[in-house]
Amino acid sequence: MSTWVKITLLASLSFLSSFQTVHARQLIAEKKVFEIASFDTEGGAKIINVRLGYETYGKLNSRGDNVVFVSHFYSGSSHAAGKYSESDPVTGYWDAIIGPGKPIDTDKYFVVSADTFANLNVGDPKVITTGPASIDPSSGKPYGLRFPVVSLRDSVRAHKALLDSLGVKRLEATAGASGGAIQAIEWAALYPDFVKRVIHVIGPGFEIHPWAIAMVDLWVTPIKMDPQWKNGDYYNEAGPRVGLSKALKLLTLTARHWGWANSTFGYMHSQRLPSPATRIDGQFQIVDAFDMTGDMRASMIDANHMIYMSRAGALYRLTDAEKRGIKAKILFVPAESDLIFPPEFSIEAAESFKKAGGKADIFMLRGSGGHLDGLFEIHQAATAIRSFMDTP
Amino acid sequence: MSTWVKITLLASLSFLSSFQTVHARQLIAEKKVFEIASFDTEGGAKIINVRLGYETYGKLNSRGDNVVFVSHFYSGSSHAAGKYSESDPVTGYWDAIIGPGKPIDTDKYFVVSADTFANLNVGDPKVITTGPASIDPSSGKPYGLRFPVVSLRDSVRAHKALLDSLGVKRLEATAGASGGAIQAIEWAALYPDFVKRVIHVIGPGFEIHPWAIAMVDLWVTPIKMDPQWKNGDYYNEAGPRVGLSKALKLLTLTARHWGWANSTFGYMHSQRLPSPATRIDGQFQIVDAFDMTGDMRASMIDANHMIYMSRAGALYRLTDAEKRGIKAKILFVPAESDLIFPPEFSIEAAESFKKAGGKADIFMLRGSGGHLDGLFEIHQAATAIRSFMDTP
Repeated sequence: MSTWVKITLLASLSFLSSFQTVHARQLIAEKKVFEIASFDTEGGAKIINVRLGYETYGKLNSRGDNVVFVSHFYSGSSHAAGKYSESDPVTGYWDAIIGPGKPIDTDKYFVVSADTFANLNVGDPKVITTGPASIDPSSGKPYGLRFPVVSLRDSVRAHKALLDSLGVKRLEATAGASGGAIQAIEWAALYPDFVKRVIHVIGPGFEIHPWAIAMVDLWVTPIKMDPQWKNGDYYNEAGPRVGLSKALKLLTLTARHWGWANSTFGYMHSQRLPSPATRIDGQFQIVDAFDMTGDMRASMIDANHMIYMSRAGALYRLTDAEKRGIKAKILFVPAESDLIFPPEFSIEAAESFKKAGGKADIFMLRGSGGHLDGLFEIHQAATAIRSFMDTP
Repeated sequence: MSTWVKITLLASLSFLSSFQTVHARQLIAEKKVFEIASFDTEGGAKIINVRLGYETYGKLNSRGDNVVFVSHFYSGSSHAAGKYSESDPVTGYWDAIIGPGKPIDTDKYFVVSADTFANLNVGDPKVITTGPASIDPSSGKPYGLRFPVVSLRDSVRAHKALLDSLGVKRLEATAGASGGAIQAIEWAALYPDFVKRVIHVIGPGFEIHPWAIAMVDLWVTPIKMDPQWKNGDYYNEAGPRVGLSKALKLLTLTARHWGWANSTFGYMHSQRLPSPATRIDGQFQIVDAFDMTGDMRASMIDANHMIYMSRAGALYRLTDAEKRGIKAKILFVPAESDLIFPPEFSIEAAESFKKAGGKADIFMLRGSGGHLDGLFEIHQAATAIRSFMDTP
């Protein structure tokens, strides 16, 4: 296994932001469970026995108003920062900016992150979610495609119930990358008086674009083509492992950039397969590495959940009234090489928000890592985020 | 069928560049066949009874030196310009720049274009190619994956034999878009004294990049997942129609750009399917349109040929000595929104070529149509190409 494959695998499990110098005061994370007996979705369905995992870092003050909520991205989880034990080799994905003395300072703030509905990582024992792989109480069997469509707004509404249960009265900020950035804005649109600031990292602005709608559909196309998918009813069988692997391969490439591909791989034939110049079953190194990574990630991820999360992202679209109602100020943090939510989307959103009287700042992440620079390069925005949090 | 779907379908069959005012002197194209009894590939295999289609526009002069060769792109064909009859509703894909009085002026030049090995459009009666769908003389059955790997250089070498047979002594220029741009440079690398100019439109420069290698592999992934593909032996059966349709959907999106997706579709639910907000089998307009277009294109295209053309493109890589040996001057015509061969590849290639003593110019196509602007927006480069052809 190449170093790149290993690192990508770890990253893909959302355990890793970067191998950083361990701080003197290491944040230790713990997964907890929040339950909702009955939840009404935006689409008009009812979900019974909702269970969602969450983590908290820092301490809630007596006024319940020193809180930052961190929403996770498409393939991420509520493990935003810290380690599960001192010996845990990796940290939560945004550990670079969340922790004692860090820009989202757990000495000042009570930070909460929670798993969404239909979180992808069903095979990760640290992820707790409710989705197509959950047991439908009415039948005693997994929902499959009988699970209702859930939007990211549904996850935000469930997370609001969690904060209410914890005694949170006000959010100093919501923050998130990509799908998490969408949720961070949904918070401000749904609860304008509850949210003071939004940190919108590698996000689309105030609505999803048709480009991204088509992209998330492409990601799940191989799943639906796999005969083992069986229209979502595969839970007592092998399941669509090949389709899921190819879906994850597609996701990984489109979340990157040619600069990253060039610098990480170069033009190389695979060393373990025949030469692509003479054998049609031969292959190049980049393709072989993507295939291996896809196979490994597939063991942790549920195919139906990937379909549902793709749909959840595609449904994001604020009405004009909702957008006008936002009272939070927004820090947009696009990545210059992002090909999913390219920086012009953030720039346009910031300009239209300011034109309508809102307060918005922009900080651009530099690099050729593509969309994923919002995870791996977030340290670049440390000062911008600290200063955004410090201003009233 | 939406207007967009119709137009894309026509374009995808490579019949269409743009609905232009018909010139007083309409170029009438005719498909001819060139045969090679036995061809040795770069990979060391031998192909018997090669047949490739070609078209010519204009007249060869007595010295055989007023010639422009136009190589076609990945999903294109040798129908570069003109109509097959006065009543033909569409023209060849580059009719905007090839014809009487046009930048590649058929009053001055004898223009030749030929089908490559493993051309995708096996179902198009106007395309003549030799590839996996051809009959293997040794078995009397279609080759399938027993057809040898062919590179774009192999096609160029076969096309050189065609020009020799026609009495061509020198090329005023080679020209092509995308995979055709690769071949245009291969001509100049293989036959430095034979090629005076290269017009390299939406191409990668002097080698393919790992980004594009991974991209063309993604395109064919759905084909290989289709149980009807049967490892390439499907010629007496239904064949991988679903996989091919999804492959073409992937190809179409990645060859475009978010600006194009936004302006063409916007955020719309499909009108003929359930709402994506409430039904997991619902869909958005952009996805529905891509699915329909993929289905229609699939009827014309051979799945194995798509796999072989992907490989042919991925094998492009000049040695340093070959690059240094090029005597032609090169006009690079990147498209600013190209996400497959982005403009910086052309700019870097032009700079390195000039640094090594070569002559190179750059003309940038403007727009948000993505890679395909090299076809649909080529008229922007008309003056630049005319002036490039006119200088000695």
